[in-house]
Amino acid sequence: MDSFRFADRAPGGTSQPVTIRVDGRRRAVIESVRPSISCRSVPVKRVAGDTLQVSADAFADGHDQLGVVLRIRDEGERRWREVRMRPLGNDRWQGETPLERLGRSTFTVRAWVDPFATWRGQLERRVAGGQDVKVELLVGADLVSQAADATPKQVAEPLRARADRLAQAARSKDAADLGGALDEELADLMATHGPRPRPADSGEHEVWVEPLRARFSSWYELFPRSLGRKGEHGTLRDVHAELDRIERMGFDILYLPPVHPIGRTARKGKNNTEKAGPADVGSPWAIGAAEGGHTAVLPGLGTVDDVRDLAEACRGREIDLALDLALQCSPDHPWVKAHPKWFRHRPDGSIRYAENPPKRYQDIYPLDFESEDWQGLWQALLDVVRFWIDHGVLVFRVDNPHTKPFPFWEWLIAEVKRDRPEVIFLSEAFTRPRVMEQLAKLGFTQSYTYFTWRTSKWELIDYLTELTRSDVAEYMRPNFWPNTPDILTEHMQAGGRPLFASRLVLAATLGASYGVYGPAFELVEARGLRPGSEEYLDSEKYQLRDWKPGAAGSLEPLITAVNAARHAHPALQRNDTLAFHHVDNDMLIVYSKRDPESGDTVLVVVNLDPHHTQGGWVDLRLEELDIDPNHPYQLVDLLSDDTYIWNGGHNFVELRPAEAPAHLFHLRRYLRSEQDFEYFA
Amino acid sequence: MDSFRFADRAPGGTSQPVTIRVDGRRRAVIESVRPSISCRSVPVKRVAGDTLQVSADAFADGHDQLGVVLRIRDEGERRWREVRMRPLGNDRWQGETPLERLGRSTFTVRAWVDPFATWRGQLERRVAGGQDVKVELLVGADLVSQAADATPKQVAEPLRARADRLAQAARSKDAADLGGALDEELADLMATHGPRPRPADSGEHEVWVEPLRARFSSWYELFPRSLGRKGEHGTLRDVHAELDRIERMGFDILYLPPVHPIGRTARKGKNNTEKAGPADVGSPWAIGAAEGGHTAVLPGLGTVDDVRDLAEACRGREIDLALDLALQCSPDHPWVKAHPKWFRHRPDGSIRYAENPPKRYQDIYPLDFESEDWQGLWQALLDVVRFWIDHGVLVFRVDNPHTKPFPFWEWLIAEVKRDRPEVIFLSEAFTRPRVMEQLAKLGFTQSYTYFTWRTSKWELIDYLTELTRSDVAEYMRPNFWPNTPDILTEHMQAGGRPLFASRLVLAATLGASYGVYGPAFELVEARGLRPGSEEYLDSEKYQLRDWKPGAAGSLEPLITAVNAARHAHPALQRNDTLAFHHVDNDMLIVYSKRDPESGDTVLVVVNLDPHHTQGGWVDLRLEELDIDPNHPYQLVDLLSDDTYIWNGGHNFVELRPAEAPAHLFHLRRYLRSEQDFEYFA
Repeated sequence: MDSFRFADRAPGGTSQPVTIRVDGRRRAVIESVRPSISCRSVPVKRVAGDTLQVSADAFADGHDQLGVVLRIRDEGERRWREVRMRPLGNDRWQGETPLERLGRSTFTVRAWVDPFATWRGQLERRVAGGQDVKVELLVGADLVSQAADATPKQVAEPLRARADRLAQAARSKDAADLGGALDEELADLMATHGPRPRPADSGEHEVWVEPLRARFSSWYELFPRSLGRKGEHGTLRDVHAELDRIERMGFDILYLPPVHPIGRTARKGKNNTEKAGPADVGSPWAIGAAEGGHTAVLPGLGTVDDVRDLAEACRGREIDLALDLALQCSPDHPWVKAHPKWFRHRPDGSIRYAENPPKRYQDIYPLDFESEDWQGLWQALLDVVRFWIDHGVLVFRVDNPHTKPFPFWEWLIAEVKRDRPEVIFLSEAFTRPRVMEQLAKLGFTQSYTYFTWRTSKWELIDYLTELTRSDVAEYMRPNFWPNTPDILTEHMQAGGRPLFASRLVLAATLGASYGVYGPAFELVEARGLRPGSEEYLDSEKYQLRDWKPGAAGSLEPLITAVNAARHAHPALQRNDTLAFHHVDNDMLIVYSKRDPESGDTVLVVVNLDPHHTQGGWVDLRLEELDIDPNHPYQLVDLLSDDTYIWNGGHNFVELRPAEAPAHLFHLRRYLRSEQDFEYFA
Repeated sequence: MDSFRFADRAPGGTSQPVTIRVDGRRRAVIESVRPSISCRSVPVKRVAGDTLQVSADAFADGHDQLGVVLRIRDEGERRWREVRMRPLGNDRWQGETPLERLGRSTFTVRAWVDPFATWRGQLERRVAGGQDVKVELLVGADLVSQAADATPKQVAEPLRARADRLAQAARSKDAADLGGALDEELADLMATHGPRPRPADSGEHEVWVEPLRARFSSWYELFPRSLGRKGEHGTLRDVHAELDRIERMGFDILYLPPVHPIGRTARKGKNNTEKAGPADVGSPWAIGAAEGGHTAVLPGLGTVDDVRDLAEACRGREIDLALDLALQCSPDHPWVKAHPKWFRHRPDGSIRYAENPPKRYQDIYPLDFESEDWQGLWQALLDVVRFWIDHGVLVFRVDNPHTKPFPFWEWLIAEVKRDRPEVIFLSEAFTRPRVMEQLAKLGFTQSYTYFTWRTSKWELIDYLTELTRSDVAEYMRPNFWPNTPDILTEHMQAGGRPLFASRLVLAATLGASYGVYGPAFELVEARGLRPGSEEYLDSEKYQLRDWKPGAAGSLEPLITAVNAARHAHPALQRNDTLAFHHVDNDMLIVYSKRDPESGDTVLVVVNLDPHHTQGGWVDLRLEELDIDPNHPYQLVDLLSDDTYIWNGGHNFVELRPAEAPAHLFHLRRYLRSEQDFEYFA
């Protein structure tokens, strides 16, 4: 903004003059631009193909007319694209612009008092009131002539001709001769080329454009080391054999826990026991050994080239391979000797292991981000990410990002995405709300959420409303996980297969992004370590597991059907249109999603009770569904293929746990047609 | 904020490095400071004697403990005062500081990861867990010793002694000897003098502290020219004789329409007719004649010294004299000749008069704020305000501020209030909401509102909720006027005396500031110019009126009682605690106000129907009133002196228009006492 200091002081004035931060004649004001997060300091998130809709209050003193435009500039470009904004009433203006290019773009709103539009509006009223407007035509001629002076020659000529015509009309004795003053053509010419005196600017806002997968993704987590035959240690090559199954189930991100050498010092045994036996494989999150650190692969799993090959094989199936980014070291990590400064030392010279006093985690050394050599550490960590990007990995699930400083992530993600804007970072921060939000604000593409522990109808409605209808939706993309290797909730331990099924449907239809930890999930692994613990018994974090993916009762068919529905229905690929509907039974939850572009609409009814049949009367808000209340509509259950026809919003539903966890309805609207089978579309 | 640029680039990086706007090791984050308007660009408003309460989200990565302080600095001072903020849970912090000095003050929130508090908290848990903490005591000794090094000698010595004790305890063989590590005294010393590494700052917010009258004021508007005897032109000296009556009624601001010479060119006649007769006095808002302009007084009213005398006489009664600031000129204003550049000219050389095409106001020339000589114009207008301040006028009612540029008002008000922070500006902008809000944001002390047209229960509840419970309450102080010389609503024209009475009670109890245009108000002047017009018949704007203030049926007694209640009850001197309560009759409205400091509580029941008796069941939200639901409470009607005793929230009320427009209850709470008359306090 310009800074203006008024020079003269009235006699008797004693103190310093007041600085006015705007031109004294700048009359337009812009306020309350949306979207805008944390006073413009946080970019809003969108995906390529989205339309960015921007609104703002824009007004001036008095009753003159404003010109208001939305301006957008992609990173690295010099020119602004410009779109006229339109008034919505009550001094609110709105404009839209398509987003195509990945990366960061900047947008601003600009407004000015438009002298030509103001003059034209007043002229219309003068003419309607029967006033003599000859002198006013001279005013108009002057405005158009000024515009001509300020534009390149090819535009200036028609403008100058227009100015002459107005001046002529002013001299003409024919009172009805307005010299074309009120022509739409002249109005358009002047809207584009007319003067824009002293415009006000909103300041720069940012939008971060990412690939569709940033918003819509289905994650499958897998421990490759359990894929070996006959209890042997599995390898990255063994994963290739699983890809058919994963693709068939409809997942598009395959996420592997850390693949790096595992420390031997203080290695944990099975079920997280203090001492590991010689055959114990240890936790993959205790990263680093003599064989290498964050850029090495555990020899038992394979080589860095095996990672590259797997990433490539995945990409052939439109699956992204995701690695785990766990920025911590085992005591055997090469950095412990090479960079002792990157760790915290105690006065007795020992390195601090991880602690949550009085608990100790002696197999883990945290990195010291307050180290003198913090810049060296940051660079090394960026190099790790770049190393795996160079090996074809474009998705990172980041372990505990909330225990590293925020500026580090802001820098790392910006550095990576500046060159590779398609890279996706998932924040695994199960911590306090403000910390989770901050990580999303500074650049994480997606975030784990509290969904895992939200089980009752009202918890789900409250939480999803916060995630999808508040400002949080502008920067935080939730990812819903019914289970993870760290979390098997009490709810899941107690609810059995019907509960796993309902949690899958909830995660995959409430959230455009979701994930499961398998094969534990589809095989309904529900045995907790002990009562009150969320740890698995015989957790794969500390030992190999011999899963039988083909076993009877596997949830694979349900997962396949749900993911197929997600791919076929754009309504399920977004969260912003999620709407809850009333049902008179608290064990049933009913919600819809719509894709406004295609009209695609999905209605979901989930039975939250894994033990009993539940039924109830639903009251649909038909306007949220864009359903005509005067015609029937058809519901096709994408899980059972059953078809229903409903009239109006009041309808009965019933679900039996043994049969189905949910209805996942595709809504088909009434269509006038001569053939029966074309009644609905 | 510091700016940090990471110097080295990884091999293969091509584009420019990303700038990080914070120190890479600055771990604390501050977000969502409240109060904060328009991203810190707008000061929040308070009055002297208020406590400023500030809250913010403050957090860091991990689980270390934070230190968080509120810092405040009055304008012109160099030192910050500092108050520790306390955690409210969920990473929200809060602190308070008293506001005494008039003027602008700056406040910020500062947060840092507190190494000593973190160490101390962990030590407690280590000790509780039975760990050997000897090495940890050395860590503590080091932190305390660092603090000693950084502080002045008198503080350093006790700190150094503490550090030595910790180091000794570390060497001691007695496991229980902690060297006083967990003493509260040491914790307090370190909270004040301990290190504050890399603090985060919220950026500067502003609070504008004004006198109590900025929030709590009762305005009385009067045309002095109607005070003459036997139809003669009244003078400023005649106003002195009215002061007893005005003071008795309880008003504390006496506002006069413009007192300046009135133009003769195109002067309006009675009832706004086109042509004035030779005896017509004209509109006081057509300012300027041969006798002078904005710093002159109409000779018929008196002299500038009469203004000074009247202001002084008012001040003796704790009344402020308010003048009208109407920045426009009659064609006869001296500026028209002296400063032709300050007016807009048409191509034929004529000066533009005021217009709203096709309507013309030929007796008024607007000032051209887009003039080349805008700086000269601004200075002249500031000189006008300073001139009247020098004559003892400290309150200005500003006519149509929304037709002058916003930067002008921002500058003028800041210039005036920097030297004279007690000056009050009332914005008379009956225009669009965003424009009214903007004028309040840039510095107007009080604002006229839509109250004048809000008549039904739901309109009043909606509007008052917006004004008192949204962000608007932080910067806009509403002033409620049942009538003005420009506005006699249809509602008022039809409702008669009972409606005037209920509108008075609404204005004076919903709003801490309110005003009436008298004697038209107390004499129930309700004759409109013609059906559908809000203008008065025989409007005092264009002619003298011979009022009879002592007439039977005058509302003076009611006004006196209401203003007495306002002065006696601090609850009525603020808007922030306004709460509406349910009553099962839409012609009754029930609300309360509380003063948290004194506990003073007022409950108001108004009958919105001027024609019929209305009764209904009230459901009070007793928690809003701080009433114990298990004891009776007493209600004293401050208008009728009747007393009631109620139990619980459910009670019946009834109001007859002929008897009383409202109950204005003072609530007295149950008090344990041995004497009957002390049951309530």
